[in-house]
This record gives sequence, C-alpha cells and structure tokens, in this order.
Amino acid sequence: MTAPQGFLACTANLGIKDGTPDFAAVVSSVPATVAAVFTRSRFAGPSVTLSRASLDGTGRGVVVVSKNANVATGSTGDANAAEIRALVAARTGVAPADLLIASTGVIGRQYPMERIRPGLAALPWPFPAADFDAVAAAIMTTDTHAKIVRVRCGDATIAGVAKGVGMIEPNMATLLTFFFTDAEVSAPALDAVFRRVVDRTFNALSIDTDTSTSDTAAVFANGLAGPVDLVEFEEALYDAALTLVKQIARDGEGATTLIEVRVTGARDAEQAKRVGKTIVNSPLVKTAVHGADPNWGRVAMAVGKCEDDLDIDQERVRIAFGDVEVYPSGAPDALDRAQEHLRGDDVVLAVDLGIGPGAFTVYGCDLTDGYIRINADYTT
Amino acid sequence: MTAPQGFLACTANLGIKDGTPDFAAVVSSVPATVAAVFTRSRFAGPSVTLSRASLDGTGRGVVVVSKNANVATGSTGDANAAEIRALVAARTGVAPADLLIASTGVIGRQYPMERIRPGLAALPWPFPAADFDAVAAAIMTTDTHAKIVRVRCGDATIAGVAKGVGMIEPNMATLLTFFFTDAEVSAPALDAVFRRVVDRTFNALSIDTDTSTSDTAAVFANGLAGPVDLVEFEEALYDAALTLVKQIARDGEGATTLIEVRVTGARDAEQAKRVGKTIVNSPLVKTAVHGADPNWGRVAMAVGKCEDDLDIDQERVRIAFGDVEVYPSGAPDALDRAQEHLRGDDVVLAVDLGIGPGAFTVYGCDLTDGYIRINADYTT
Repeated sequence: MTAPQGFLACTANLGIKDGTPDFAAVVSSVPATVAAVFTRSRFAGPSVTLSRASLDGTGRGVVVVSKNANVATGSTGDANAAEIRALVAARTGVAPADLLIASTGVIGRQYPMERIRPGLAALPWPFPAADFDAVAAAIMTTDTHAKIVRVRCGDATIAGVAKGVGMIEPNMATLLTFFFTDAEVSAPALDAVFRRVVDRTFNALSIDTDTSTSDTAAVFANGLAGPVDLVEFEEALYDAALTLVKQIARDGEGATTLIEVRVTGARDAEQAKRVGKTIVNSPLVKTAVHGADPNWGRVAMAVGKCEDDLDIDQERVRIAFGDVEVYPSGAPDALDRAQEHLRGDDVVLAVDLGIGPGAFTVYGCDLTDGYIRINADYTT
Repeated sequence: MTAPQGFLACTANLGIKDGTPDFAAVVSSVPATVAAVFTRSRFAGPSVTLSRASLDGTGRGVVVVSKNANVATGSTGDANAAEIRALVAARTGVAPADLLIASTGVIGRQYPMERIRPGLAALPWPFPAADFDAVAAAIMTTDTHAKIVRVRCGDATIAGVAKGVGMIEPNMATLLTFFFTDAEVSAPALDAVFRRVVDRTFNALSIDTDTSTSDTAAVFANGLAGPVDLVEFEEALYDAALTLVKQIARDGEGATTLIEVRVTGARDAEQAKRVGKTIVNSPLVKTAVHGADPNWGRVAMAVGKCEDDLDIDQERVRIAFGDVEVYPSGAPDALDRAQEHLRGDDVVLAVDLGIGPGAFTVYGCDLTDGYIRINADYTT
C-alpha cells in the first residue's frame, strides 16, 4: 500500500540510552490540519505541556524522543524539551510552534543534551519520504515489535504508528500514537472525528491500569490527496486506530492473550465502558484468562465492583466466554467449550447487563509472570 | 493473654470441599451488642444479604462457612444460606435473626447440603469456650496462615480473627473479620467506633483492587467484663484491626513485602486516601517494590493518575522511600539507601503533596509471580 503523500521523516540514534534508534521526526512538506489529545496526568512531562500549548489546529509535524520520557525533570527538563523542538524546527525550516513534541521512556532522568545537540545538528535535510516502519521502530521502548497500520480512504491514505506496552490505561488520550494522512479535512472536523475515534479505541484500552505521564495521540492531515467523505474518513481512522489498539494489547508486557470485553444491555455506553474497564482491569479475571480457567465467578465479582451502579441486578446479568453462555446457566458442556475458547490467542468476554441498549467494547490482555519479570527488573 | 469471657465456639469439617475445617460458629452465652459492615458489591451473596437484613444492634454470634462463597447461586443459594443459619440457631437455642452468617470461597457453586445437614445435626452443644485460634484456622481459604489478634482494654479483652489473601480492596467493609469482646459498649457507640476503625484499617487495605462479594466485618460485645472507657476501647479495637490488616497484607497472594503508603500534606484525609490507594494499587509500583527498585518515577506516575485532583502540583510533591527522600532531590547516596530500604520486608512509601494538613496511610503488598501462579490455577 502506498504511503500518504508529502510526509518526510528522519529517524536517528542520539545516544539517549544505548545504540538503538531513539529519535524520529515527521514533517509535512505543506501545512497540515492537526488534532491531538494528551494525558491528563498531574505529572505530565514538558513535552506534553509544550505540545498542548502549541496546538491550534494547524501544524507541520512531530518530534519524538524515545528511551527517556523527560518527566519530573523540573525547569531543566522544560528547557531541554523546548531546545530540542527549536533545534529540529531550525533544521527543517519550520516554526517551533508548528511541531508537536512527544517523549517516552524512563521517568526522572535528564536528557544527555551534550549528545543530543550534535546529533540534531547532523540530521540530513531535506528528510527523505517518510518510512513509517522506521518511525514505528524508532519510538519503541520495551515494545517487542513495532506497531504500524495503513488504510485507504478514497484517494487518500492514512498511516498510523504507536508505541506502548505498559503503563497503559489512557484517559483522554494514550501512550504515543500518530496518524498521517494526505486527506483534506478541516481542523474542526479533524478534531471532532479524532476525539470520537480515540474514545472508542485508545481510551477503550487498558494493559495495567497505570496511566502514562507522556500519553500523546495526534493526527496530521496535509490535504495533498484532496477532500474525502467525512463518514468514510472517520471509519477508516477508526479501523486504523483499532488495529493499533489490538497490536498494543497483544504486545502488553508479558501478555499472551488479547482480551476483548463486550458489554451490552447497559443503561448507556458510559455504564457499559465502566463495567468493561472494571472487568478487563481485574487481576483475577486477567490471571483466569491466562490460566484458561472458565471461572466466570471472577467476571461476576468484577461486575459486582461497580457498586454505584445500583441498577445492576445480578439476576439479570448474563456472562459468556466467546459465544458460550456460562451464567446464569450454561449447557452441560458449557465449561468445557468455554475453556476451549480461553485457550485461544483472542478471548472475548461478553457481559449483558439486561438494563438497556447501551454497549461498549474494551480491550486488554492477560496478566502473566512475564509482566512481573519485566517490571520487577526494569531500570535498575 | 486470656480470651474474652462468655464466648463459645465450634469448628468442624462439613465436607464442603475437602477434609479441612470449613465451618465455625461463635456464640455469646449472653446477648451482645453488634456492629457490622458489608461489601457493597452488586454480586453480594445471600449470606451478606441475610446478615445485613438481620442487623439491629444486638445479637448472639456468627456462623461462618468457608471454601465456598455461595455467591451467584440464585434462589437455591438464598434458601441454603437461610437453612444453614436456622439449623445452627436450632442447635444452639438462639433465634436465627440473632446470628450473622458469612461465607467465603469459590463463587458460583451450590453448597453440598446433603453433607452439611447431617454435619450440623452432629455439632456438640453446648459448644466449648471459644478457641479463637481454631476459629481463625477454620475460616481460611487460600490463606497460608491464620490471622488472629488479642488486645486488652481495661478489664476487657478483644479477640479478632480474619481471613483473606486475594480479591481484597474493601469498600465499606472487607473480607471476613470478626471481633469478640467482653467489654460493655452500647450498640450505637459500638457502631460508631467500628465504622471509624474499619475506615482507617480494613478500608485502607488493598491486595489486588478486586472487591469480594462476601466482605463482612463484625464486632460482638457481650459486656461480661463491664464498662470500658470508649476512647481506650476505640484505640484498642484500632490496634487489633490494624494488626490483622498487616497480617493480611503480608499474606497477600504471592506477597513477599508489606507496603505502607503514608500520604501527608493533602487537602484532606479523603484526598490523601485516594492518592495512597492509587499508589498502593499501581502494578508498576508493586513490581518495583518486588524488585527492590528505587524507581520513584513510578510513584510520581501513580500520583499523576489522580487527574481530577487539580491542586496536585508536581513541583510541590515530595517522595521518600522509608525516610530517604528521592524527589524532588535526594542526597548523593539516596538511591542506594532507598534500595536498601526496599530490600526489607516492610516498605514505607511516603508522599507529601504540599497542599494542606490532610493525611492517610494505606496498606498493601508487592506483586509477584506467586500471585500469577496462584490465580492462573485456582479452581480448575
């Protein structure tokens, strides 16, 4: 599939942590409309603060630094983020305020500016046409593989990249993910579409209930392929985002299984999402899935945790693994068939609350000893 | 230490799951005042429903069935809970409504009433003087050791027992825990004291963010030792409850380390508790503690998750491991000393928000591969 037109990109190693790529910049050759959402963390880093302040609906691209999140680094960290963005802006002939900046990696360490400055000065310009596979690889931290998607929408193309395997329960935004398209979409339309898409995809994802200080999701539309049907565009962007969400969940730290929790019969979508998140975040549900144990009592327990949803009545709740109903009653072979479903790589937990027409699907992964190994050792 | 006077108890194996004790009943020889709090789960079991309906400030004792929670068992489960309580009431000559009933264990299985009925008919009566060690052992499920405490208060004694290792984030109440005292305390005073104590102890505990369908905490005061100073009584009950909370956290599924999160400098105690719970529940914090990794960035991340606390300002937050401050700045050897502290069995994470006088301490444990092993296998 062709890439969207008019995007130039450069990846590099600036020596931030080791010899692997730790820098990516993507710049549109012409002005683009931009929409973005960011973490709501009270420990948001300077990259988030800077990007949020510059977001005005138009821009040229994004600078990503990986392997160091530049978070909780005080005024030195603020100055370093601004300097890195200014250096890339100067190199590419773009105004600093037209570049977003995003960072990901360890928290609480200063950037090695003595290595970053000469590295940025040596970047080639003009950048070559964007190699999104290289961009997706450069923004990885503990990801085991790069996350990338390309979809078509009329004459236009959308390319998306993402990184993230842990510290993932986005709220308002997520991890790092960037979409680039040559579709022509006005800034207000792009913002509205993007917020709706993020709500149904990245904000429906949880790996481990921990919310990153660096979450940034953005879309750039440079219009080089001309106008698109907005409904089709939203659907295409949704497909692209959902594909990345599933790639992220599958690559959740230590994960072996993608869990999709489909909640139906809720009062409204908001209640369905709340119940779904409660289920997909329950460590007892996640470990049961890991053990392929059709212990639906844990799903019931998790539903029960929504204590303020007084309209949830255990006598109207129905629980299924895949399409196998197990509560309130199952066929004689239900538990065997449920266990068979749980042994697969993609597990669906379906819960109907029996209240109303509200529905929502959320995504997550199982909890394994791999998660413990990765996170008991990272950093030291 | 002597036991509180006037409590009789019996433990037995009724063949609910295997040959280990699965039944306990404690009855006061004279009427007692009673206070109790229960899970708020929407999947609360019939034992909780029945006990909550009978609670009127006075009573005689409690019946506990372990190894099967009798939850999500429909009208048959309702009838079985009522029948078990009625059989014990008949055997002990007490009105059914004067007995609380509590159950714990697997969810979604019916009781083997064909074994329970003859078992209850064979109970000795009168029961011998209460052996609280035996009671604490009989109510265990996956606990690796019994949880028991005895404290003095003037001429009176308080004995407390508890069970619980997983599915523990109490809200309003917790797991199963029962206190028996011969102090004379009026029903309204007992209720007020108990709610305050539970709020600072059991409701300040989280093993894994999952809330049990069976949580029940109760205290029985039969007055045989005469009146006590209420302030002293509250302090004694608090000491007893906190001792059990620490025993539970230490025995959290797979746990190797007790984590105490002390939040100070908050707007109020409620904010301090919210921040503390967010930290103690963060899997990235829990795994860092397990790895003895002084990665304070994860504590900062967890504080940052309190997104709606707009008065939390990362520039006023201070973070310490034990008494070693690591953020915003630490002594040159701070990380080494913090790591030393993290290698101990009792870890203190201290966070000061720099906002106001609010403080709260919460309790939890580390997250280990032992948790995964236990919970990926339980039940099948």
